[in-house]
Amino acid sequence: MTALLTTVLKEARALDREDPLQHFRERFEQPSGIVYLDGNSLGAMPCAAKSVMADAVNRQWSKDLIRSWNDNQWINAPKRIGAKISRLVGADPDEVIVADSVSVNIFKLLSAICRNRPNSKRIISEAGSFPTDAHVASGVADAMGLTLDLVPRSELLDHLDHQTAVLLLSHVHYKSGARFDMASVNVEAARHEIPVVWDLSHSTGAVPLHLHEDQTQYAVGCGYKYLNGGPGAPAFIFVRSDRQEALQAPLQGWMGHSAPFAFDDAYQPAAGMGRFLVGTPPILSLLALESGVDEFADVDMKQVWQKSRSLFQFLVGLMAKHCPQLKLMTPTDECQRGSHASFSSPDAWPINNALIARGIIGDFRTPDVLRFGLTPLYTGFEDIAHAVAVLNELLTTGVWNQPEYRKSAVVT
Amino acid sequence: MTALLTTVLKEARALDREDPLQHFRERFEQPSGIVYLDGNSLGAMPCAAKSVMADAVNRQWSKDLIRSWNDNQWINAPKRIGAKISRLVGADPDEVIVADSVSVNIFKLLSAICRNRPNSKRIISEAGSFPTDAHVASGVADAMGLTLDLVPRSELLDHLDHQTAVLLLSHVHYKSGARFDMASVNVEAARHEIPVVWDLSHSTGAVPLHLHEDQTQYAVGCGYKYLNGGPGAPAFIFVRSDRQEALQAPLQGWMGHSAPFAFDDAYQPAAGMGRFLVGTPPILSLLALESGVDEFADVDMKQVWQKSRSLFQFLVGLMAKHCPQLKLMTPTDECQRGSHASFSSPDAWPINNALIARGIIGDFRTPDVLRFGLTPLYTGFEDIAHAVAVLNELLTTGVWNQPEYRKSAVVT
Repeated sequence: MTALLTTVLKEARALDREDPLQHFRERFEQPSGIVYLDGNSLGAMPCAAKSVMADAVNRQWSKDLIRSWNDNQWINAPKRIGAKISRLVGADPDEVIVADSVSVNIFKLLSAICRNRPNSKRIISEAGSFPTDAHVASGVADAMGLTLDLVPRSELLDHLDHQTAVLLLSHVHYKSGARFDMASVNVEAARHEIPVVWDLSHSTGAVPLHLHEDQTQYAVGCGYKYLNGGPGAPAFIFVRSDRQEALQAPLQGWMGHSAPFAFDDAYQPAAGMGRFLVGTPPILSLLALESGVDEFADVDMKQVWQKSRSLFQFLVGLMAKHCPQLKLMTPTDECQRGSHASFSSPDAWPINNALIARGIIGDFRTPDVLRFGLTPLYTGFEDIAHAVAVLNELLTTGVWNQPEYRKSAVVT
Repeated sequence: MTALLTTVLKEARALDREDPLQHFRERFEQPSGIVYLDGNSLGAMPCAAKSVMADAVNRQWSKDLIRSWNDNQWINAPKRIGAKISRLVGADPDEVIVADSVSVNIFKLLSAICRNRPNSKRIISEAGSFPTDAHVASGVADAMGLTLDLVPRSELLDHLDHQTAVLLLSHVHYKSGARFDMASVNVEAARHEIPVVWDLSHSTGAVPLHLHEDQTQYAVGCGYKYLNGGPGAPAFIFVRSDRQEALQAPLQGWMGHSAPFAFDDAYQPAAGMGRFLVGTPPILSLLALESGVDEFADVDMKQVWQKSRSLFQFLVGLMAKHCPQLKLMTPTDECQRGSHASFSSPDAWPINNALIARGIIGDFRTPDVLRFGLTPLYTGFEDIAHAVAVLNELLTTGVWNQPEYRKSAVVT
């Protein structure tokens, strides 16, 4: 153990002991030999997922077969899990449903909203945000004869005018970790009568969300990041109750019909959020998601954010002292950031590879970003101590600068 | 054992002994006490799925975490599984990809095709077919200023004209089991230069499919029926290689980008079938699907159809003799049907409930249809003998006509 590690471990362990969420850590699988700081990309597995999935496969599918749609309540899973998520985002249970992917859900919302605003000319979103948002918006804009304006963050609000059909924003930026002030953006957009669609992928399960309080009307979010719902877990969609009946996406499938088993030719959208379902949902992935969401059942979301703040402060403090070569990109003001910390360096790519080789798993984002996800339910202060100590050693010795760490790109 | 059962079991067992696919039955879970004739709705579980899913959850997700996108080849799963399906439908490996649901995939194809046909006026599909096809088509038609004409089967080809944007057909009818002659429909549509999108949900894995040979350009299909991919398994999409580059669906997501990890704002569709991906796919459900598809690895699809024919003949022969009250709806000509047999009766609902109470699981389709799926890899002749014997007893005794069997609807 290096001298640095000895010192920082002591402090980390003291913080872990004081952490009121400490007991949640054992509820998640902790693979030996690694420090996992990538829960903002793929959440760790809840231990409960093992038995949930064994039951889903070996009893529900295998034994109960088609009867499971009723007997094991598969048919209600999208609404049931949506209702569980609603509490985490400050919404009512009948305002959230689980369906498809974030991308497909953005498509549903943008298409449905733009259809109701025939005199509008453009969709506005942020330049350089997570690209699927821009890609989906661009597809909708093309299909509906609108333009898509991708605007730098600082100019966004100035671009809002009466010709804007909808504003699409990622609440927490995937790369920098910067967070919009949702309430004030909503107020400003409302002044121009512009609906806002929020992508909560990098917020839900970690960052405070008060959709009602903040006057949010539309949002989507991700199941596989801080909700720990498993790889590619289905996403969710939120529409405030007073806006639901006015929305009809062009993506009309039988599961969104008011009476799917009447098998009518004519489409009649389900009342409420049911209309945002399309095809038959991937039940196994849904049930894995539910096991992740269920871990939040007794969690005080204020404590979650408090923990995220403490982890961030600890990480950033250690990094400034022991790895000053890496420049913090994430705002330090807690109201302006999410639950990951990003650092820039022209050598981010080989440094990240060298970290992974030593079991410290954060991730790299092109061109120069090292990202560390802080997942309040299972990231410990000791994880951070280990990560910083290894990083310090890599930087001090220069060992990251070996050809093997400059090898070709991984895909995630 | 009834006298009837004794007699028909003898014949059934002889047929099972001669069945060249008989050894596949033990590769699927067979819950005790039930006869499963609903594999056309949810396929039985391959025994291998148990370990595949345990590995997916307890090693790939739990231990390898984010590294699995590379190390366990999650990133290639949609193409890899698509390539495995391609052989079963008579296509090339790079012409099939797994993504989203059947409904969402129909949306992609119809939208993309209609966009390339700006002078067309309507989408044509069959009245009374599986409703998601009509619902999706109606959503696309509305969005694109087209009409949707739902036409009775007998009049379909007469409706094709130069104003038709696209013809959408379900290859095998979900209710009657009637099958279109794909090649001749394609020829007739081609005469009018009309593209055809085929929904292969009730065909793939059971009914002969020769997409290339039949000049098919576009198709979608289901993963959870005869492919035994698990509840709500992701669907697949086929586009003939010469048509791929011309298609761009409005549903543009980051996984369909030519370089997803470059995180560019501008959407650039991937070459080939990759462009039909949208969001992050539900990996756990994908891997379950793969375990189903893998069971076909060494299967001669001609034997599969031969088995289906024999099962159908056995079932229909017994039913005519022992349950004549139930009227066969499915065409007997093997070229005109799929792999399920449907019977009509005004009492189909209570009869089906009484069957289920006795462990015979087929299904009911409104208003008067009893449906029995014949899944060549695991349905045995003995299953059919049991089902018909129980049905005969129900009808003979009238025991199906009890209030408990007339209770409110199940959902599937």
